[in-house]
Amino acid sequence: MKLYDYFYSSAAFRTRIALNLKGLEYEQIPVNLRTGQQSQSDYKAQNPQGLVPALSVAEGTLGQSLAIIEWLEETYPEIPLLPKAPWDKARVRAMAYTIACDIHPLNNLRVLNYLKDDLEVTEQQKTEWYHHWIGKGFDALEQQVEAAPFCFGDKPTLADVCLIPQIKNAMRFEMDLSPYPKLRSIWEHCMTLDAFVRAMPENQETAG
Amino acid sequence: MKLYDYFYSSAAFRTRIALNLKGLEYEQIPVNLRTGQQSQSDYKAQNPQGLVPALSVAEGTLGQSLAIIEWLEETYPEIPLLPKAPWDKARVRAMAYTIACDIHPLNNLRVLNYLKDDLEVTEQQKTEWYHHWIGKGFDALEQQVEAAPFCFGDKPTLADVCLIPQIKNAMRFEMDLSPYPKLRSIWEHCMTLDAFVRAMPENQETAG
Repeated sequence: MKLYDYFYSSAAFRTRIALNLKGLEYEQIPVNLRTGQQSQSDYKAQNPQGLVPALSVAEGTLGQSLAIIEWLEETYPEIPLLPKAPWDKARVRAMAYTIACDIHPLNNLRVLNYLKDDLEVTEQQKTEWYHHWIGKGFDALEQQVEAAPFCFGDKPTLADVCLIPQIKNAMRFEMDLSPYPKLRSIWEHCMTLDAFVRAMPENQETAG
Repeated sequence: MKLYDYFYSSAAFRTRIALNLKGLEYEQIPVNLRTGQQSQSDYKAQNPQGLVPALSVAEGTLGQSLAIIEWLEETYPEIPLLPKAPWDKARVRAMAYTIACDIHPLNNLRVLNYLKDDLEVTEQQKTEWYHHWIGKGFDALEQQVEAAPFCFGDKPTLADVCLIPQIKNAMRFEMDLSPYPKLRSIWEHCMTLDAFVRAMPENQETAG
């Protein structure tokens, strides 16, 4: 199993956590987003969307972190990342999508670059934009999650797999997390677990 | 089953298509995004994120269109919206997420309002922004989808459920769709099907 990866990408970070939680081995192939490697033709032949992550397995190459994780969930169900009961599963997915559909897409590198380069917004406007969308999503999540140890129940789920990279990202952009005690307690608990820690950007070989 | 709905919302539109394809009855409760009804406390008590759609059933109220549709898929599997084979399912989900995570979140009403009101971009800049993100996503999708009749295989799937509202939205913003013959052929086929047509914004009672 090969993971096309970039150490700082939150979506790649999610996939690393899921692979680690499931105890799966994978080879990391770095795709440097800062130098535009994701837009080069050899990578786009693998993943037409030109984004990371992508997972390459016997069946082919798959993009989209959540599609990868749902496929892992179905193919390697021994350590599940979704609860069994349909309504519980739906609640976990709703939390994951709050992050993956309503926070992260607005704040990733390509969007921040567009704001800076094409719309020529100031550094402060860019920071306000960033904090605005994180705030909207985290306000809702703080109400949706259970307390520690995890977003839902006593085992890590897809919701934690999405939340931890988003919190990491928020810290990097100096977001004030004091209004989110429940989210912070989940972060603190996950930071005691090897599967999360090993997936952290700074713990990737290519980090620099 | 009650659907908190707004006729113009692409995410609500997805949910209407899925409910129709599965032949399920539902009561529509309009939440007017133009007048800010989604941010009022009685609605946010149901859905803390303050977005539409939300589905209210015996188990509770669930937000996030994709979480709703996955729950419907599991609870009412008779007419499936995902293929059975895990890799096929993953490919369909990846197409759906390309729309739901990488196009739609950048172009929905709250974001366009932020660009206009907070960043004070010009009308032209707003249109360019809109077309830019649609173009990025549709360029990839045009390579990922099969030809007509549908995005994948000979039955409508979650990918079509996401694609049709996104194309409708693109048409509304006068996006040039000529570079996307495969996407257009899927649109044309879906427009011959009652489940899609009945879900169209202009065919909702509250459209105006």
